[in-house]
Amino acid sequence: MTVFSWERFKKLSLAIPELPLFVDLSRTSLSDDAFASDPLVSSAFPAAFSAMTALEKGAISNPDEDRRVGHYWLRAPGLAPEPELTGEIESTIQAILGFVRRVHAGEIAPEKGGRFENVLIVGIGGSALGPQFVADALGSPTDPIRPFYLDNTDPDGIARELARIEAAGGIGKTLTLVISKSGGTKETRNGQLEAAEAYRKEGLSFARHAIAITQEGSALDKTAVADGWLARFPMWDWVGGRTSVLSAVGLLPLALQGIDVEGLLDGAAACDAHTRKAEVAANPAALLALAWYRESGGSGQRDMVILPYKDRLLLLSRYLQQLVMESLGKEKDLHGKTVNQGLAVYGNKGSTDQHAFVQQLRDGVHNFFVTFIEVLKDQKDGRPSLHVEKGVTAGDYLLGFLLGTREALAQKGRGSITLTVGDVSARSIGILIALYERTVGLYALLTGINAYHQPGVEAGKKAAAEVLTLQAAVLKALRAEPSARRTAEEVALAAGKPEATETVWKLLEHLAANPDHGIVKVAGADPFSARYGCSG
Amino acid sequence: MTVFSWERFKKLSLAIPELPLFVDLSRTSLSDDAFASDPLVSSAFPAAFSAMTALEKGAISNPDEDRRVGHYWLRAPGLAPEPELTGEIESTIQAILGFVRRVHAGEIAPEKGGRFENVLIVGIGGSALGPQFVADALGSPTDPIRPFYLDNTDPDGIARELARIEAAGGIGKTLTLVISKSGGTKETRNGQLEAAEAYRKEGLSFARHAIAITQEGSALDKTAVADGWLARFPMWDWVGGRTSVLSAVGLLPLALQGIDVEGLLDGAAACDAHTRKAEVAANPAALLALAWYRESGGSGQRDMVILPYKDRLLLLSRYLQQLVMESLGKEKDLHGKTVNQGLAVYGNKGSTDQHAFVQQLRDGVHNFFVTFIEVLKDQKDGRPSLHVEKGVTAGDYLLGFLLGTREALAQKGRGSITLTVGDVSARSIGILIALYERTVGLYALLTGINAYHQPGVEAGKKAAAEVLTLQAAVLKALRAEPSARRTAEEVALAAGKPEATETVWKLLEHLAANPDHGIVKVAGADPFSARYGCSG
Repeated sequence: MTVFSWERFKKLSLAIPELPLFVDLSRTSLSDDAFASDPLVSSAFPAAFSAMTALEKGAISNPDEDRRVGHYWLRAPGLAPEPELTGEIESTIQAILGFVRRVHAGEIAPEKGGRFENVLIVGIGGSALGPQFVADALGSPTDPIRPFYLDNTDPDGIARELARIEAAGGIGKTLTLVISKSGGTKETRNGQLEAAEAYRKEGLSFARHAIAITQEGSALDKTAVADGWLARFPMWDWVGGRTSVLSAVGLLPLALQGIDVEGLLDGAAACDAHTRKAEVAANPAALLALAWYRESGGSGQRDMVILPYKDRLLLLSRYLQQLVMESLGKEKDLHGKTVNQGLAVYGNKGSTDQHAFVQQLRDGVHNFFVTFIEVLKDQKDGRPSLHVEKGVTAGDYLLGFLLGTREALAQKGRGSITLTVGDVSARSIGILIALYERTVGLYALLTGINAYHQPGVEAGKKAAAEVLTLQAAVLKALRAEPSARRTAEEVALAAGKPEATETVWKLLEHLAANPDHGIVKVAGADPFSARYGCSG
Repeated sequence: MTVFSWERFKKLSLAIPELPLFVDLSRTSLSDDAFASDPLVSSAFPAAFSAMTALEKGAISNPDEDRRVGHYWLRAPGLAPEPELTGEIESTIQAILGFVRRVHAGEIAPEKGGRFENVLIVGIGGSALGPQFVADALGSPTDPIRPFYLDNTDPDGIARELARIEAAGGIGKTLTLVISKSGGTKETRNGQLEAAEAYRKEGLSFARHAIAITQEGSALDKTAVADGWLARFPMWDWVGGRTSVLSAVGLLPLALQGIDVEGLLDGAAACDAHTRKAEVAANPAALLALAWYRESGGSGQRDMVILPYKDRLLLLSRYLQQLVMESLGKEKDLHGKTVNQGLAVYGNKGSTDQHAFVQQLRDGVHNFFVTFIEVLKDQKDGRPSLHVEKGVTAGDYLLGFLLGTREALAQKGRGSITLTVGDVSARSIGILIALYERTVGLYALLTGINAYHQPGVEAGKKAAAEVLTLQAAVLKALRAEPSARRTAEEVALAAGKPEATETVWKLLEHLAANPDHGIVKVAGADPFSARYGCSG
């Protein structure tokens, strides 16, 4: 059994005071001298560091899509492989800051006067999770502009978010950012149309309130040009959605909200300087990747539970779910071998989760390792806290629960990593983002997979498109005999798709439950003998 | 390979039109005739049904704590084992409804006049997750009273929530509900003190705005009586925190918000009538428990991913994390044998998650099964949706993505359950809550564990208390020689705890980062040689 001594703690941790960041791997399964002697340190890491250097220099590190991988350049434009790229990155940041200054100054103002009070972010996945995480981590109720989101294609969810905007000054006081790298994401397109309709209903021009963040020449970009939208900001093919939070995707909405985006970039750049080091013991991302590898058997045998003890970091786990799982969850390795890699991520915040699922972590199935995230400063602005007992603050309790749970898990042989940051500031959020981006990149190199594509996402989109095609065929069949009342089996046959009767039944149930297509249902003896037809 | 035919779909699904609820297990590993022929149907289920009957009749189903388990009585008071209990449950519901009526009518009003506009819920775990889930599922921006939460002991998180209240009418317009069954939860006690301080700063009486929900005679109850709080509502020892959402814990804040709590109770009672049936094929909870068992090997070998395709159900997975993991994550079975049971739960919402972690679900490590949740009605109020293309609404896309992902996963041999409800209403939320409560109970009986205790939670609390005791010793040692500047090793020795040097170092780093205790730090050559002392 591992002895958790002070000596082990000192050997298995890394302090970087100038960030600051503290990485503690003493409660993992690593041996005391793992930083030097783990076989990966001399076998896989040197090649991983070389590949990472090549990536930063502009190699095609996403071979399937024939793309470079440049999110590290976003916070160090001078490192971009060509001066044109450096210039584009720098001028985009300046354009964002300049645009935001003009909005805050009221020079860019709503059509009907006043100032912009809200920003509606229309985007999904990488176009929403990063901005949402940072906005929640750094936002406050007194921010100059409040963020709202359409991040799904749920009509009721869209209606509710628009109602929230209505209660917060109205759509007329709202800038809408439509974010889609490809410009072809259906959920985002639908959100854009719903937002445009909300402006139209108020007699307002959508174009005068709309901003596109997309690749030059995309369908979205063309719409924005043709309709004369307020502004356009670029995405680049060398930035993936899940690593785009420090591009215009995150910088524009966050800067509008009043968040110090230069602090975010500075923190990320400062962290990159350490995660670029080709020495495992000095590189916090390499150490994390090593711990992930050993805790998960290098093949996702254990889940990664993220437990930040800080309310403002609640959405970190959701952000990391995408960053880690979409990057590492791959069927094939770079040689085409089937590996079914991945690392499942979940978690919320401590000590809240101690009253939820930590019971299972300590006593139940041992299929996870934890990452605790500790924040040294209790109050964002450094002011004193209330003493809840003589000589004890709520923050002392928070740390007590973190250390207590770390100990209780260790007693039961459950591994944990602890990361410590100084505070929750733009700089420290930048540090965390950069740390995890690099860890994912290095881990992918250790396991030999492409971290930068997402072939499985396409399959779901393709299958969804087939469902919509089938719905059109079903509606056509129903309308061909409007007064008929037919079972799902009969409708599937009439639509020429008897092999898809199950899906046809599900489509009919949904069509009949909503007024949009004029489809009615007559209940049958059992749910599968119900009959459907056109109303009226 | 399993053929996913229309015939299989009909055999492996259960429709209950009168709820309505549709359970589809066709995309699991169950054989076509599993509802009748699975070995568990004749072996373990009969005993599980008998034990559940005994539980509902008042047996001691939580033997470790010598308690009865009565959350099913909350929505069917007539089924409680004694008339006194029936009366207590009924009178509590009436007291809640009466109290809420008086608040809404302005008869119970803020100290300085006007009406109550906010409710601050101070509680953690079972006292927060259920109310938060339902409030988000059924709330709207025009609710008469808006909910806020202190669900952690994070000073900055508390300050931010109080600032949000400040921006929403102020603490003077706010009722505060302090919810703790035992009345001794430290996080909740700390939140209560911080809330009380917020009233005090405004020159207001906390007691005149405070309501306790706790067991009669608890420390919290005594405080509420002694200080003359506005009201008290009971918790009972036969309701566990994680199944308390349909007790005063959930009913009071939700009713204040304007949510139809009688609809919640009705939905739960209606679902219970089906999940009480001693026939697997007709009992939706038994079917779910059977599928969980087969998909996870009866021992948590696979995680349960919850994917509701509906924004309003975003927090369902967080609620289920507690309900499922705290109930099933157990070291010992009822015979004292070490089993390390459990079922890990995570997820957010579709189709958003398709752009996040579904890549891994389809292509990556096969360590999960999915539960899709489908909602037939696209708009909460049944009104038509915008057509985003000719003949297609955003809701048609949402269903297309659900069915497409279900299909894409099935193609890769990844199992999924699909639950369909009619809408997102109080009734259907009650149905879902009751369905999962019973499924967890039945699954625990299949695996022979006590679903109603949480011994592992105590270990974390105990370890945390030890950390706070150590902090007091550290502070005492520092103050004994205020001008000394000592290393963590020296302080640990002076505090008589050299074996706890690691924790002492962590405590010192936290103490020095905050102004609350007057501790300063002098950096050293490395982080572990820093010196600490008292300021001034």
